[in-house]
Formats: sequence, structure tokens, C-alpha cells
Amino acid sequence: MATKTDTEVIIGGKVFTLSGYESEEYLQKVALYINNKVAEYNKIDGFRRQSLDTQGVLLQLNIADDFFKAKKQVALLEEDIQKKEQEIYDLKHELISCQIKMETMEKEFKQLKK
Amino acid sequence: MATKTDTEVIIGGKVFTLSGYESEEYLQKVALYINNKVAEYNKIDGFRRQSLDTQGVLLQLNIADDFFKAKKQVALLEEDIQKKEQEIYDLKHELISCQIKMETMEKEFKQLKK
Repeated sequence: MATKTDTEVIIGGKVFTLSGYESEEYLQKVALYINNKVAEYNKIDGFRRQSLDTQGVLLQLNIADDFFKAKKQVALLEEDIQKKEQEIYDLKHELISCQIKMETMEKEFKQLKK
Repeated sequence: MATKTDTEVIIGGKVFTLSGYESEEYLQKVALYINNKVAEYNKIDGFRRQSLDTQGVLLQLNIADDFFKAKKQVALLEEDIQKKEQEIYDLKHELISCQIKMETMEKEFKQLKK
């Protein structure tokens, strides 16, 4: 099992100490993603006018939107994989049929040659 | 193009009016997901002791973690699809080889019969 570690990340200029099993590299990547969203949103007047509390919830909604879009992509890819698995199954079946036919023919061929 | 609509969602007991192209159903699903997280986190003493501001950031980190995990799943599934595509390509190739061999044999077979 991985060791539990403390990692300091800076989000919106504030330091947060995160305790857990995730790597420091991963947590910094997550923090950077949030900071980029904060920077992006802070360009919008309508966002800056909101209370800090509301800003926080709007960011949560935006991140959750990214999550649900990724989840939808997962569902689509899983569907695609199922189709491909069916295709592989069908192709293997066809290939075996062809190989069996060929073996039968080879036998007949040999007998005919005799 | 879809029409822009206003949807009211309740997050942490506060009403937010979201303006955009997403369906009301989708936005309610996203809001429910966040509310479930809020409820889950509020069971933890260490979370409730934090300022509202910090609580907001911790929720953002947790949602972003869900997003990155889903993104990782997308990457793994895409890798799997690539492997399956290669397998389909190889099987098709093998099947065509088998079919060509069989055709050649059929021709020889007919000639031999004559």
C-alpha cells in the first residue's frame, strides 16, 4: 500500500495541505487545473461581481460539468469497445470456418491426387 | 442550435440561476451530484471546522479528482480501442489470406477433377 503523505498546494493564492495517498505530482496537476479555471473565470466581470461563496459554487459547477462530460465520453467509448468486441468475435468465427473448410479441402485434394 | 435557457438549481441550500445551452435535466443532475458531495463532506468534523471558503476549495479539489479519474479512464479505454482496432485489422488480413488460399485451391480442385 502507498504511504499517506501531506502535500501543500496553492489554490487561489491560499495554501492548502492535502493529506492522502495521491502523489504530489498528481495533486499539483489537480491544483493547476483549478487555478487555471479561477484565472479564466476572473476575466469575466459577471463572475468577479459575485460573492466569494457564489464564485466557489460556480467553479464547482464548472468542474462538475467537466466531470460529467468525461463520464459521457467513458460511456461512449465503452459502447464502442462492445461493438469492437462483437466484431472481433464475428471475425474469429468466420476465420475458423474458413480454416476448417480449407482443411477439409486439403484432405479431399490429397485423396484426389492419389 | 439549442436555445439559451435559465435554470434554477439549489446548491447547499442556496438558489443559483444558471444560464446556458444545457438542458434543465442535465443541470439538475450536476447540482444533485454536488449536493451529495456537500452532504457527504458535512459528516466529517474536520471539514465542518473549516471556513466556508476553504470548504468550497476542498469540494473543488474533490470534484476535480473525480474528473481526473474519469479522464484517466478515457485514456485507458482509448488505448484498449486502439488494441482492438489492431486486432480487427489483423483478423481481417488473416481472413482475406484464408479466402484467397481457398479460392486458389477451389480452382486447382476443379482442374484436377477434370
